Amino acid sequence: MVKFLHTADWHIGRKLQGLDLLEDQQFVLENLITEMKKINPDFLIIAGDLYDRSVPSKEATKLLQELLVKINIGCNIPIFAISGNHDSRERLAIGEAWFSKHKFYLHTRLEQAFDKISYEDADIYLLPYFEPFEAREYFEDATLTTHNAATKRVIDEIYKNLDTNKTNILVAHTFVSGGLETDSEREISVGTVENVAVEIFDKFDYVALGHLHNPNAIKETRLKYSGSPMAYSFSEASQTKGMRLIEVTKERYSEEFIPLKQKRKLHNISAPYEEVLTKEFQQNYDCKNNYFSMELSGLEGITDPLPRIKEYYPNVLILKQKRNTGIDNEVKLDREMLTKSPLQLIEGFYNEQTGSKLTEGQKQVLVNIIDKVNQDETN
Amino acid sequence: MVKFLHTADWHIGRKLQGLDLLEDQQFVLENLITEMKKINPDFLIIAGDLYDRSVPSKEATKLLQELLVKINIGCNIPIFAISGNHDSRERLAIGEAWFSKHKFYLHTRLEQAFDKISYEDADIYLLPYFEPFEAREYFEDATLTTHNAATKRVIDEIYKNLDTNKTNILVAHTFVSGGLETDSEREISVGTVENVAVEIFDKFDYVALGHLHNPNAIKETRLKYSGSPMAYSFSEASQTKGMRLIEVTKERYSEEFIPLKQKRKLHNISAPYEEVLTKEFQQNYDCKNNYFSMELSGLEGITDPLPRIKEYYPNVLILKQKRNTGIDNEVKLDREMLTKSPLQLIEGFYNEQTGSKLTEGQKQVLVNIIDKVNQDETN
Repeated sequence: MVKFLHTADWHIGRKLQGLDLLEDQQFVLENLITEMKKINPDFLIIAGDLYDRSVPSKEATKLLQELLVKINIGCNIPIFAISGNHDSRERLAIGEAWFSKHKFYLHTRLEQAFDKISYEDADIYLLPYFEPFEAREYFEDATLTTHNAATKRVIDEIYKNLDTNKTNILVAHTFVSGGLETDSEREISVGTVENVAVEIFDKFDYVALGHLHNPNAIKETRLKYSGSPMAYSFSEASQTKGMRLIEVTKERYSEEFIPLKQKRKLHNISAPYEEVLTKEFQQNYDCKNNYFSMELSGLEGITDPLPRIKEYYPNVLILKQKRNTGIDNEVKLDREMLTKSPLQLIEGFYNEQTGSKLTEGQKQVLVNIIDKVNQDETN
Repeated sequence: MVKFLHTADWHIGRKLQGLDLLEDQQFVLENLITEMKKINPDFLIIAGDLYDRSVPSKEATKLLQELLVKINIGCNIPIFAISGNHDSRERLAIGEAWFSKHKFYLHTRLEQAFDKISYEDADIYLLPYFEPFEAREYFEDATLTTHNAATKRVIDEIYKNLDTNKTNILVAHTFVSGGLETDSEREISVGTVENVAVEIFDKFDYVALGHLHNPNAIKETRLKYSGSPMAYSFSEASQTKGMRLIEVTKERYSEEFIPLKQKRKLHNISAPYEEVLTKEFQQNYDCKNNYFSMELSGLEGITDPLPRIKEYYPNVLILKQKRNTGIDNEVKLDREMLTKSPLQLIEGFYNEQTGSKLTEGQKQVLVNIIDKVNQDETN
């Protein structure tokens, strides 16, 4: 049996509305280390997006190194990690050759997914974030145009050498959808939609995912997102943030979600202006410390509400006027757009502007361009 | 006795007149590794400026990592390295904690200079590049305003625990001058001039320096620059480039300069236009391969000489018209200016513009500003 912790999406160096979160990140990840020490797991999994951008600041670089040194060298806990879409694989991989000599395994290239690492009775496969074109090049197979097809091909390749007597664990940074796609969906989304079907992974005893920040983004057994250790947008304000403790063999499986202490909470406030200024309202929140996004009504005739609000809520990061109409529709539209692929967005725009639909030939040109853009962003 | 190689100033990622030199760097440093294998030294010293800039490109990052992996892990040769003024200490230091577990010691912070590392009968001290303000902060001593004073203070601190029975080796990245400064020079250069007196280092059995690219920049016994492994400007075209092989004990000392094969040579050409186009002239050079800086006469009436020149010399990087007067003086003036400190340059400019001299108070203000600029650049 192996007992391990599963975390992901640290996004070291992330900002929230322009505000540096390094202190918050240090706080929550030091707490992760404290909890880890109590649990004393066999190893720690970090499923991608260690940094928030490809060229992290000196301060972010320093913090991540300090945390990893504490875990791997200070506590002597092995680390199994992969690069996510936010990481520069080359920059993250500096030192990789030395890391692995101290059981800190960090895979950043697709082909490394096939080098399994054994830990007692478990085999661990580390699949870093990759774009479909990388699988096309690796397998010399032009049909691998979607994340689903490319990931399936990679996993099938892993399955060829899978030792089914071992406890098999996969670490991946990808958008796994809850169920199989239907044919009609597949037709719409050729070459663009990112989601990967959950069935692909069914021979693993645990799949440790990163990418989505909500720990409950998917409700499967033995296949989970850990979620990010802290909220990185106000849309995550209501999510409990933490890491997962997993104990697994081929036969037995148990999981526990370990919440992590946060330096500051995020709150979405929707209320009248005068109300948020009352003591009664304020006693519900740690106003001086926490981060606030406020949508206020009753602002008519008030030219600059921010200074007064900041007196009570120094860390208010978003202040919007609540209107009686429109807002809800607008928000809904934005959310709908977020679920669309680049090709779908262009199709909709083209249709809106010209009244006609894209031809299959035009679509193919767009698919190629979108692929190339993804390719350039990844390289 | 220890036998080791001394190199410095790799400047991975350097460009020459905008041209990427990564291929040339890979060639010469692979040759360094080949020569190293033949020699099989106890260890390799790299005295700073591993990268050319604080945020190296992904390609530069990849190349440096590959080279260091080959040396330290592939050939199992210990590495003693420091950061130079071109390196970002935080970015270079990623992985440092894991490196040292495989005898790759990389010091990037001033205080690490006092952690000596023992190798058989030798003690090695690694002093990274630092600015005087860092010594002022570390020792809480406001008088350390020059590189000379700051370095002397650091070395005196090292001397306090020096084991004089051991072979003591210092690695430093600094501008060591050939002799003691006179009092008058010292007065002029308060707080600004970078050069450090050679006498400071007299208790070491060898001082491995980096910073100056000319391997013969200083002619001392047991205190040397290795120079850069390749020429990084046309002013270095005539220098032999390589590394130093040192064998040293308290009593015995021997050195050998090992030249390194270059992918392409640099040539400074000063000749008439028509002459460089002749076969006779060209047979003296590897015209298709090498880099050229040309100062040509006889260009009167020729509107665009470059395309014709490039036919024969595809890697001509500088093309200037040679004039009959002025050039020599201009060049001389530039060289003179390069030897002046920022304070001296401002003093000269002030004198030229106003006809009067800076007061001591004004000088002190400038010293503070210059220090702050250096501080900001280093942080």
